[in-house]
Amino acid sequence: MPVPTIVWEDGSCKIIDQTQLPGEYKVIALETIEQVWEAIKVLQVRGAPAIGIAAAFGVYIGVKDFESDEVEALLARVDQSVDYLASSRPTAVNLFWALKRIRDLAHASRSLAAGEIIQRILEQAVAMIEEDNRICKAIGDYGAELLNDGDAILTHCNAGGLATASYGTALAPVFRAKEQGKNISVFADETRPLLQGARLTAWECKQNQIPVTLICDGMSGTVMSQGKVQAVIVGTDRTAANGDVANKIGTFNLAVMANYHSIPFYVAAPLSSVDMSLASGAQIPIEQRSPEEITNGFGLRTAPEGIDVYNPAFDVTPHQIVTAIITETGVVRPPFEEGLQEAFERAGK
Amino acid sequence: MPVPTIVWEDGSCKIIDQTQLPGEYKVIALETIEQVWEAIKVLQVRGAPAIGIAAAFGVYIGVKDFESDEVEALLARVDQSVDYLASSRPTAVNLFWALKRIRDLAHASRSLAAGEIIQRILEQAVAMIEEDNRICKAIGDYGAELLNDGDAILTHCNAGGLATASYGTALAPVFRAKEQGKNISVFADETRPLLQGARLTAWECKQNQIPVTLICDGMSGTVMSQGKVQAVIVGTDRTAANGDVANKIGTFNLAVMANYHSIPFYVAAPLSSVDMSLASGAQIPIEQRSPEEITNGFGLRTAPEGIDVYNPAFDVTPHQIVTAIITETGVVRPPFEEGLQEAFERAGK
Repeated sequence: MPVPTIVWEDGSCKIIDQTQLPGEYKVIALETIEQVWEAIKVLQVRGAPAIGIAAAFGVYIGVKDFESDEVEALLARVDQSVDYLASSRPTAVNLFWALKRIRDLAHASRSLAAGEIIQRILEQAVAMIEEDNRICKAIGDYGAELLNDGDAILTHCNAGGLATASYGTALAPVFRAKEQGKNISVFADETRPLLQGARLTAWECKQNQIPVTLICDGMSGTVMSQGKVQAVIVGTDRTAANGDVANKIGTFNLAVMANYHSIPFYVAAPLSSVDMSLASGAQIPIEQRSPEEITNGFGLRTAPEGIDVYNPAFDVTPHQIVTAIITETGVVRPPFEEGLQEAFERAGK
Repeated sequence: MPVPTIVWEDGSCKIIDQTQLPGEYKVIALETIEQVWEAIKVLQVRGAPAIGIAAAFGVYIGVKDFESDEVEALLARVDQSVDYLASSRPTAVNLFWALKRIRDLAHASRSLAAGEIIQRILEQAVAMIEEDNRICKAIGDYGAELLNDGDAILTHCNAGGLATASYGTALAPVFRAKEQGKNISVFADETRPLLQGARLTAWECKQNQIPVTLICDGMSGTVMSQGKVQAVIVGTDRTAANGDVANKIGTFNLAVMANYHSIPFYVAAPLSSVDMSLASGAQIPIEQRSPEEITNGFGLRTAPEGIDVYNPAFDVTPHQIVTAIITETGVVRPPFEEGLQEAFERAGK
């Protein structure tokens, strides 16, 4: 099992600074709510489940020094902290889901003393780490059933342990299949512009003795046409009720390539990333990021000045080319709207 | 019309050093055959037509100081120079086509004095620049007919003026359409790993006042799904008789994305890049390049040590998803084998 991506230790939220990988393995402590906001914004912590957990700790950090007994004032501070942290990134729904849980918990606890409410927020955030581990492991178990000994899977971006508290979503089936004695290897799209595949997925596979081959995003068709890949598994930042999947930019291209080659395209999605309030992916807000991520990505200007750059951080894969969605309560196949509803029912939600 | 990519001036072959763009515009003189080989190998000069011309000058440079009157010895030196230059890169057929023309010319001139043969080689190489300009302009004229005022085209890698003597293949229709008063804009795939789109196509469009938007290769599906692109035009390093197209890695993915979105996918192909001796793309040799192009692309290690890397320089797009091939004698539509044969006949070849 991978090293923990996010822990609560010695009174602070400690994360692996993912912007420094693979060059440097550095754990940093987030001690102010502004530091949490910034860590999410600049992708020191990233991946839908992990930023949800980081944000939950962020609320606690934002209120832990609240000294009055005024519960209403505390709740106002909670709301303010939640709204602030929600402004860090727009696409991953786990962020809002986690923040809503904390806010709801705080408001539901208004009969308690302020100090007790604050303590409950911390306990909830800590519990979310354990919950995330259970969920990722369950996704891994369901996903591993889809993989055969000797398979190679292709993944995009990083939806491994680094994207969650520790186990991963898209990589969880690989980890679990390996633990079951299956021989599974990974092709990692490098994932431009920020190279999460090269920097994080390749690093994490290597740490866990999983054979990994790095490719550029434009090579996926070639490896598929050569029969090198048996399945694609990706994560998701938000999946709509109809099964449309928002994930890291480049995922849609990969799904179309898998479809063209009749290779199954699986999405590993904790139910916290499924937004049943959105009928389709067209309603998912897509974060636009800085042009410099593309033009100055490697510490060197690699494009001329004065040109236009388009840099959406995510794309939407239409449900028609999604083979199945792997949730913690089972594998959902089309029609997704019914299947996802049933997956929530199995979770008792 | 773009600045000349390759010229013969003051007794040497001068090229724009494309590895330095867009940071620095630097013209270098190639004065030994080894320098020509190296310039082709490391992509100081690149693009199928341009490396053909550079290689032709390379043969001349390799024999120009031949001092004996022994014609057979000169021809042996020509053959040796041709074989040496042919070892620089394996995929682009123009290289072999240009070298064969020079070799054939030299051998056909064996009744002449050695000095005259050497002079003829130079004249042939110089003539290839003019010929290339005529061919690219004709491709531009045929291709421009396929474009409507207001269209945006998406291209991959650089098949602009920098890939030819000066006018370009895939970008020639854009330049010609613009000269005809049409308002055409360009989306440029950055084209990992070597970023020819970001570095060269974006630079060249900007130099020629063509609006250009840079995207990462994995964003092509998104811009297509948003209706931002009306056609794809790419170049080719070698096209087989059945219309299978070898071009820069990532082209196949782009073709599949265009096919998925019912957007026309055009290949701008001088007949010198069409290899009728190969029945299909499966027979095209694909150059494998160094892993460091992916892991250390721009002065920074961006992937962990000790992982596998797969780095094919080209891919093959199956003819079934090619809409048309734009040659200097007309636009060829399926079935390609017949159409390409007719295109050669129109050229009198």
